[in-house]
Amino acid sequence: MTDTAHTPVVFALAQIDTCVGDLKGNSAKVLDYVRTAMKENDKTNVVVFPEMTLTGYPIEDLAFRGTFRKAAWVAADNLARTLQSEGFADLFVIVGTVGTDHASDNPRNRLVVLHNGVVWAGYDKHFLPNYGVFDEFRIFSPGEKSLVLDVNGSRIGVAICEDIWQDGGPVAELAAQNIDVLLTINGSPYEEGKTTTRRDLGVKRAAEVKAPLIYLNQVGGQDDLVFDGASFVVAEDGTLLERSAQFEEDLSFWTLDASRAEVSTFAPEMGSDEEVYAACVLGLKDYIVKNGFGGVVLGMSGGIDSALVATMAADAVGGSNVWGISMPSRYSSDGSKDDALDLAHNLGAHYSVEPIENLFAAYQDQLHLEGVAAENLQARLRGVIVMAYSNSRGLLALATGNKSELACGYSTIYGDAVGGYAPIKDLLKTRVWDLAKWRNKKAAADGAPEVIPVNSIVKPPSAELRPGQKDSDSLPDYALLDQVLAAYIEHAHGRADLLADGFDKKTVDTVMRLVDKAEWKRRQYPLGPKVTALAFGRDRRLPITSRFSE
Amino acid sequence: MTDTAHTPVVFALAQIDTCVGDLKGNSAKVLDYVRTAMKENDKTNVVVFPEMTLTGYPIEDLAFRGTFRKAAWVAADNLARTLQSEGFADLFVIVGTVGTDHASDNPRNRLVVLHNGVVWAGYDKHFLPNYGVFDEFRIFSPGEKSLVLDVNGSRIGVAICEDIWQDGGPVAELAAQNIDVLLTINGSPYEEGKTTTRRDLGVKRAAEVKAPLIYLNQVGGQDDLVFDGASFVVAEDGTLLERSAQFEEDLSFWTLDASRAEVSTFAPEMGSDEEVYAACVLGLKDYIVKNGFGGVVLGMSGGIDSALVATMAADAVGGSNVWGISMPSRYSSDGSKDDALDLAHNLGAHYSVEPIENLFAAYQDQLHLEGVAAENLQARLRGVIVMAYSNSRGLLALATGNKSELACGYSTIYGDAVGGYAPIKDLLKTRVWDLAKWRNKKAAADGAPEVIPVNSIVKPPSAELRPGQKDSDSLPDYALLDQVLAAYIEHAHGRADLLADGFDKKTVDTVMRLVDKAEWKRRQYPLGPKVTALAFGRDRRLPITSRFSE
Repeated sequence: MTDTAHTPVVFALAQIDTCVGDLKGNSAKVLDYVRTAMKENDKTNVVVFPEMTLTGYPIEDLAFRGTFRKAAWVAADNLARTLQSEGFADLFVIVGTVGTDHASDNPRNRLVVLHNGVVWAGYDKHFLPNYGVFDEFRIFSPGEKSLVLDVNGSRIGVAICEDIWQDGGPVAELAAQNIDVLLTINGSPYEEGKTTTRRDLGVKRAAEVKAPLIYLNQVGGQDDLVFDGASFVVAEDGTLLERSAQFEEDLSFWTLDASRAEVSTFAPEMGSDEEVYAACVLGLKDYIVKNGFGGVVLGMSGGIDSALVATMAADAVGGSNVWGISMPSRYSSDGSKDDALDLAHNLGAHYSVEPIENLFAAYQDQLHLEGVAAENLQARLRGVIVMAYSNSRGLLALATGNKSELACGYSTIYGDAVGGYAPIKDLLKTRVWDLAKWRNKKAAADGAPEVIPVNSIVKPPSAELRPGQKDSDSLPDYALLDQVLAAYIEHAHGRADLLADGFDKKTVDTVMRLVDKAEWKRRQYPLGPKVTALAFGRDRRLPITSRFSE
Repeated sequence: MTDTAHTPVVFALAQIDTCVGDLKGNSAKVLDYVRTAMKENDKTNVVVFPEMTLTGYPIEDLAFRGTFRKAAWVAADNLARTLQSEGFADLFVIVGTVGTDHASDNPRNRLVVLHNGVVWAGYDKHFLPNYGVFDEFRIFSPGEKSLVLDVNGSRIGVAICEDIWQDGGPVAELAAQNIDVLLTINGSPYEEGKTTTRRDLGVKRAAEVKAPLIYLNQVGGQDDLVFDGASFVVAEDGTLLERSAQFEEDLSFWTLDASRAEVSTFAPEMGSDEEVYAACVLGLKDYIVKNGFGGVVLGMSGGIDSALVATMAADAVGGSNVWGISMPSRYSSDGSKDDALDLAHNLGAHYSVEPIENLFAAYQDQLHLEGVAAENLQARLRGVIVMAYSNSRGLLALATGNKSELACGYSTIYGDAVGGYAPIKDLLKTRVWDLAKWRNKKAAADGAPEVIPVNSIVKPPSAELRPGQKDSDSLPDYALLDQVLAAYIEHAHGRADLLADGFDKKTVDTVMRLVDKAEWKRRQYPLGPKVTALAFGRDRRLPITSRFSE
């Protein structure tokens, strides 16, 4: 920052939840937040919204549709005029949208400044992430010019998300331009530990440009991504100046003013289990709401996976919008049935019992299946019931598989795998237990009764598809399995690496074989929220047909 | 080409079918083709194999696994030594593989020259395609240097696939280096019309470098891609000098020799229907074989979709490896049952009848479903039967949906959509009829009896899930629907474009709404071969959650 004292610049940080494609709804929300910001602080100069505010993010190949880009342009233009007509012409409203490079006709990831009734200035994202879940090099062409805004005599440099993750480029240019603040708008998906990573990065860039950095992130669920918000402002010396809420919409203010210390807001920070739980709930909630479902339906076995999913669903949309179906067979223990009923009661969820015995008998009269085929049959008969409830009541079916199961193919495709969303698909089994315990502790701390029956947490996991079956008959112990999976999947360790990690040969070979063989099932599995550094789905793109074995 | 006469250089063009990850198998095949080439023509100087020969192509995120890259390096090294030990040290054997850039530790898409018992020279792909089905910018870093080989005094410039699709780069460099031939190795997936596109491109680049161009493509199926081979050599004046077979492995020879006209081989060229049919069969066949299935199972309704899929399956792996199941309900016409039986008989396929009446009754006693839920139930009961056959006999289940159905969501998820592979998912319904007719005509031309019952081709399409149901109750006439779908999907036309195309408003709005709403179902649909310019799947990445409507 320069030594000269400026007129203060008041920033309103509008951390909002948008919906992809909803140009009208997103524009209306921007307008709404601008009104609120001015009501709460009429000295506000700049209102900042997240990356691709108007279009939602990520828009994927929708970027290629010319009529969509045109509609986005019209939306920005209309919004600028509406802001003016409502008396906000002096404000600088910064939103993200999709643009078009007129020379090449390529889509651009664009930041626009709405001011004085027009689209006053624009900046195009320079670095296009094309790793992990990102495909931006596929759909956008990179911007070339940096942008510095003058507001009340202060120089505001701008950047979009990845621009601050890479060295060089626009941030390096801005560092030479004597800016007073670096403002970045982001669509940065949650994964565990990312809050800290972003904070560290923000500090580094603030130091680089020698000015405070505003990091404004979007919040909300979009298909398999969850955006956690957690926006912040840091000073060039690393001091945290503002912190927005995690996993909810937020409107905070921060004032750039060299002459005085400003009162800032610091939202509380969540613990690790709370964070991951909140991510799953928000991902689920936004999938339900944005896709217009009235409620959810799932099979409730009395096991820990369906118990956690049902609890998350109740936290997302209320127990009265959750339909739990107990579908006992001859192999279901009484304990399991009781646990499912207790859970439904605790959640205030609808609960029905649909035994599968008669259905199983009708099939077996005809097909006479044995072994795994007979086990899969039971799971599929249940899948048909869940989908019947879904179809006849317009409910979103939830798949209850966890990441350990999904990794090892320990689930029945078209059976327990049916559904439109899979809230815990990125949680290893051991994490499922942790979150269930955390959720019960939270209830206790809130003075509320226990939510998830303790029995569902402590009993040995079983699919209950044959007498006395236990998961441990087919899989290594979860405590060990989950460690191998984390190394193989999240850290892409090969066989030699895994042995060097200290895992025994038999376990390594078993796990690698199971994981590799199950790719085709994962490909047909429903979406679910990414919460780890590497989730199944577009984050990990492997061929189904592959003979590589180590 | 320079005017100086050189010693002739004999190229053996080894258009082979590799398997992703099968370093051992692919290396063995290379060796085998080298032996054959030398047996057929002991003057051979250069044996050319496709892009990423040793690793198979595309390897996707397998590129990130360090142990895989190491194993690929060892495979290339071993192969070079084996070639020497077998007396082929003087040969230049050109194969593709994955490399590592030692400065950045990034994977590279590499061409290596095996010669004198070592990896003699290497070249890294410069342009990395990252559009359509390709994600190479995600996994590889680009090469920087061009490579010219000296063989018998002739200068051979090399390039890898996308390198010749973009202007500039290595081809432009080679154009200034007085080369005698431009040799490109490719993994270029089939789509209708691409043979001509590639030929035109080859002519253009040959003219640019003023030398003949060798275009060597791989052949075979890999998940949702089919490589058609169709390798060729063109002269700088556009004359076709060699043409390899389509959709099968091939070993051809071509001699670079300024002094004389050489005898070349010209494989026959397929017509348009034959080509698309061959692509579907090869995609299916390689999926079956490379994934180790003993046969396939599918529901045979008597309709045209299952009839075409069953016929393709019989052409791929023989009728005796095809299990067809007729699963009649009270709504199935006698005609449909007869057609299914006739088809199975014509194909020499296994055929069984599994009525769903008792199963339907058992479910309805319990669930009392009506309307679409009751229709979906029937489809799902059939899905359970197909999967039971698949599980108990180790058969690959085939989904029989076509692109028009898939586009409009006119199918039951977990019902008729079950399967590991969907051979006609990229064929619009009108194309399904065309290919069925073509297949019958081919049989007639071969003097064989009719394969697909004419009744399956001519009757009005119906799902037969309620009395008197016809597809036309729910969908526009297929002749019209397919035109709108082609414009909306393959050409990404928005609403305004479609109206300008001359389609009526009601049809456009109906079709767009159906297509947009069905994205979640498509995401869980099995893989199938891409044969058009834009297939569902990784070729068209759209959000499920999207409120954009025009």
